[in-house]
Amino acid sequence: MSPAIATNVLPVTQNVESAIPILILSDSNNYCEFQSNRLNHTPPLPSILKTPFQVVDGPATSAAGNPNEIANLFPNLYGQPSVSLVPGHSEMKGQSLKVGVVFSGGQAPGGHNVITGIFDYLQERARGSILYGFKGGPAGIMCCKYVKLTAELIYPYRNQGGFHMICSSRDKIETPEQLKQAEETVMKLDLDGLVIIGGDDSNTNACVLAENFRSKKMKTRVIGCPKTIDGDLKCKEVPISFGFDTACKIYSEMIGNIMSDARSTGKYYHFIRLMGRAASHITLECALQTHPNIAIIGEEVAAKKQTMKNITNYIADIICQRMELGFNYGVIILSEGLIDFIPEVKQLIAELNEILAHDVVDEGGMWKGKLRSQSRDLFEFLPQPIQEQLLLERDPHGNVQVAKIETEKMLIQMVETELDQRKQTGAYKGQFQGKPHFFGYEGRCGFPTNFDANYCYALGYVTGILLHSGKTGLISSVSNLTAPVDEWSVGGTPLTSLMDVERRHGKFKPVIKKAMVDLEGAPMKKFTSLRDGWALNNRYISPGPIQFVGPFANDINHTIMLELGAKFHF
Amino acid sequence: MSPAIATNVLPVTQNVESAIPILILSDSNNYCEFQSNRLNHTPPLPSILKTPFQVVDGPATSAAGNPNEIANLFPNLYGQPSVSLVPGHSEMKGQSLKVGVVFSGGQAPGGHNVITGIFDYLQERARGSILYGFKGGPAGIMCCKYVKLTAELIYPYRNQGGFHMICSSRDKIETPEQLKQAEETVMKLDLDGLVIIGGDDSNTNACVLAENFRSKKMKTRVIGCPKTIDGDLKCKEVPISFGFDTACKIYSEMIGNIMSDARSTGKYYHFIRLMGRAASHITLECALQTHPNIAIIGEEVAAKKQTMKNITNYIADIICQRMELGFNYGVIILSEGLIDFIPEVKQLIAELNEILAHDVVDEGGMWKGKLRSQSRDLFEFLPQPIQEQLLLERDPHGNVQVAKIETEKMLIQMVETELDQRKQTGAYKGQFQGKPHFFGYEGRCGFPTNFDANYCYALGYVTGILLHSGKTGLISSVSNLTAPVDEWSVGGTPLTSLMDVERRHGKFKPVIKKAMVDLEGAPMKKFTSLRDGWALNNRYISPGPIQFVGPFANDINHTIMLELGAKFHF
Repeated sequence: MSPAIATNVLPVTQNVESAIPILILSDSNNYCEFQSNRLNHTPPLPSILKTPFQVVDGPATSAAGNPNEIANLFPNLYGQPSVSLVPGHSEMKGQSLKVGVVFSGGQAPGGHNVITGIFDYLQERARGSILYGFKGGPAGIMCCKYVKLTAELIYPYRNQGGFHMICSSRDKIETPEQLKQAEETVMKLDLDGLVIIGGDDSNTNACVLAENFRSKKMKTRVIGCPKTIDGDLKCKEVPISFGFDTACKIYSEMIGNIMSDARSTGKYYHFIRLMGRAASHITLECALQTHPNIAIIGEEVAAKKQTMKNITNYIADIICQRMELGFNYGVIILSEGLIDFIPEVKQLIAELNEILAHDVVDEGGMWKGKLRSQSRDLFEFLPQPIQEQLLLERDPHGNVQVAKIETEKMLIQMVETELDQRKQTGAYKGQFQGKPHFFGYEGRCGFPTNFDANYCYALGYVTGILLHSGKTGLISSVSNLTAPVDEWSVGGTPLTSLMDVERRHGKFKPVIKKAMVDLEGAPMKKFTSLRDGWALNNRYISPGPIQFVGPFANDINHTIMLELGAKFHF
Repeated sequence: MSPAIATNVLPVTQNVESAIPILILSDSNNYCEFQSNRLNHTPPLPSILKTPFQVVDGPATSAAGNPNEIANLFPNLYGQPSVSLVPGHSEMKGQSLKVGVVFSGGQAPGGHNVITGIFDYLQERARGSILYGFKGGPAGIMCCKYVKLTAELIYPYRNQGGFHMICSSRDKIETPEQLKQAEETVMKLDLDGLVIIGGDDSNTNACVLAENFRSKKMKTRVIGCPKTIDGDLKCKEVPISFGFDTACKIYSEMIGNIMSDARSTGKYYHFIRLMGRAASHITLECALQTHPNIAIIGEEVAAKKQTMKNITNYIADIICQRMELGFNYGVIILSEGLIDFIPEVKQLIAELNEILAHDVVDEGGMWKGKLRSQSRDLFEFLPQPIQEQLLLERDPHGNVQVAKIETEKMLIQMVETELDQRKQTGAYKGQFQGKPHFFGYEGRCGFPTNFDANYCYALGYVTGILLHSGKTGLISSVSNLTAPVDEWSVGGTPLTSLMDVERRHGKFKPVIKKAMVDLEGAPMKKFTSLRDGWALNNRYISPGPIQFVGPFANDINHTIMLELGAKFHF
């Protein structure tokens, strides 16, 4: 192990404004051999980055929706071309840059490699550059909390999980005061560039900052990087967000293990909720990797306007059919955000929020008279613990905490109730036992797969190039990802081209639309063509733990293979 | 992939008595490449098994306790010598055997390899032998549900997780009727040998069966194999139970990931409960692998007669000290069975069971007057959801369901209450947010590590030898496990030598004493020497996912390395 390795983050309790090292270089034995070994993985670069290249502009772009409003909101950026790298003579000068980088939002495996990619680019192609890391997320920009990133400091984070090199948070830079603070920071540090590594909201924020800096004729350029395990930030030129590959593989390993357990024990139905917010990309990918008996795709539930009762019956029907075949066990997966897709649940929660804000919930239940009849029926249909959760657990604003509802437990209780009723009519004779699981944190901070490690490193490297060539308001793009790394294409896509507007408080607000599961897309079609077989026959797949060497170490997820039309054995 | 691969278990709904294939050989594409690849791992055999060997007896043995009672209970077996294999000329004849094998109890990674080890031994050294697998655990013996295991049938299970080749259950063969059923089955199948793959209870059961068969002059010999992820079945000659290595590595991977998340986010305390019943071996091993801020070892809690309040204060103290250092996050691990170690909790539950059996729990709380004062104080100290759980969730006998108590959630609530009180005195100024986790099923059915795969295969192979050489009432032993596989020692240990008695219903009952964490043992000493440093400084280790090839693929767990005094870099 190199003597430079150290991972003890020294906390900073005061609001420092000077660059201080966040690592104490005293505990060089604090990595296990596996971690040290991963430090020595050198992500390969796409060929185009290893030869002389030039940055070329494509045609002008528009917006994902409402181009006029986007043009009004981003007058200095709207319409910018996408750029790509092609072989040729670079016009970039070798001048040094001052760049700041920040993590925004939840962790995703590979984030550290984006930073090492930027760093290495600057070291190799823009000698004398300085890279600052803003600490603790966007708040670090606003209050000018940063650290100067050096080779020694970043070394221990190469190919490691987590965001702890500089940490992260969910703050946004939105109000005029906050924008002013950001201006002050980038001026104080004399930044040529600012890199925001984040999801859809954070990249929207990156675009707002880029527009703001340019409108004030400031030199600071802003580039975004597509981060989120949820997989809901993507477009043609940005085929995937980083972290999705790793998180899905970690969850799929565990789902596969639980499948072995289910069929070995023969008596449990495992209901597994997967992290990933609203979109069901993770659930769909894990389904393709593991072949569960049931996978509930929220986007389909919404499209078909399904009710809780529909979903309960769908599950109960399959359980009954499986019982006839002699299978009294199974595995069911669902997404964290499922509940947001069920129209009647959203309605009920809205009504509850209204009632709870103004009325007392009387023990006798008189308050229920204020619910609309459909909502009341749904409320009565819900198991009592869920009813209580809806009434008791509220956020500081008094609202029902939807995210806290353990959907997997709710479904178990509802399915149990339904099966009990069917027992009375003789339609079900089995013994239903549900086991709830939630897979979340353990997936979003794992060691990045080789794919995520390489993809992120390339993203970081190209981010350096985009800044160096004077670009702003772009999101880094690396594509052709189903080919070997050598053949990957790299460039940048205008953030405005990903945007649409939403009307909020009488104003247009720019948003990068979340990429939800496309019900007509190849991954969903593959799933729907197979799911009936998976429901009744056990076609479980156990993908095993992520491997970093050996024949499968470079495999990539099914979603991107299918979306990009790659030929592969499914 | 071999065309013989198939994994579709056909359920048997009727009580069949004839051997039927449990696999349909129709779905040969049902494995991912990783699974197929693991099929081709050939576990290396210890050298002694590859050369001519003979089985030699050691000196006569005694019992773990109360030798007179054990001698009375097992008159035909007591005192048998341990046996070991040494180079030499074998006296075993090449005659074929009929052997039955069964899984008993919860899954543990590597179980399938025990069976393939037995099978391969019989194929190679006792041509013409027949191996039957009893289906669905010990009940399969009693009702004569079995399958004849063939090369084609077992092939898809080589080096795979789970027990689904023949499944398992928790039944016991204890009553005179049940023993009679077992006799009928082994006679019907004309078995020379019966192999019970199980934990402490199942191996006790194996010994009872061996004694019973021998006392009736039946030819059927019985050999046990040490299975349990809990790690609580071990002795000098059986240094570890199989599955422990894999389960701990899977849990440690996830703990390590959550550590990265904790320090990246900087705002959560993760409370992680780990499967593994009463003993804290898994918690201790995972602590040694990952260096959490706190690991609660149940055996220590019991030895120090700690109360819930003690544990709460211990955690809260560390949280307060960490706050002063600027760390408002952390990782705390605890074992599934922690609650069983807290004397006051056991007392409270005993009293509650008594009260709930005879009285009505009145809303006014008058019933609490029946609790002894210490129990009443504890009850009042518990958070309300836990109080409700204690009162409401009861098993069919009306007893409180201790196993259902989510200790990690209970501790979060208690620590939260304590910190709120400290806030009022100014002793704590942080924002405590606890996140509960339970890691269980995903660990006990994972792909066995190379260690577990090789260890189990050797266990199976030597089991065949023990049966072939006419031994009964032994547990297979493979030792010298910290050396390369080549140098492993193999043999068998009399089950009676592991036994003690317990007095139940006025009778002596034989039991293999669970091996609890030895507070004076090397693993615990290593842990106690380091834990204060881990508590305040972050020394987190992230071991990453299990690797099957590459430099760390053959690493084994810290517990066995420390217990056997192996030199290694910690």
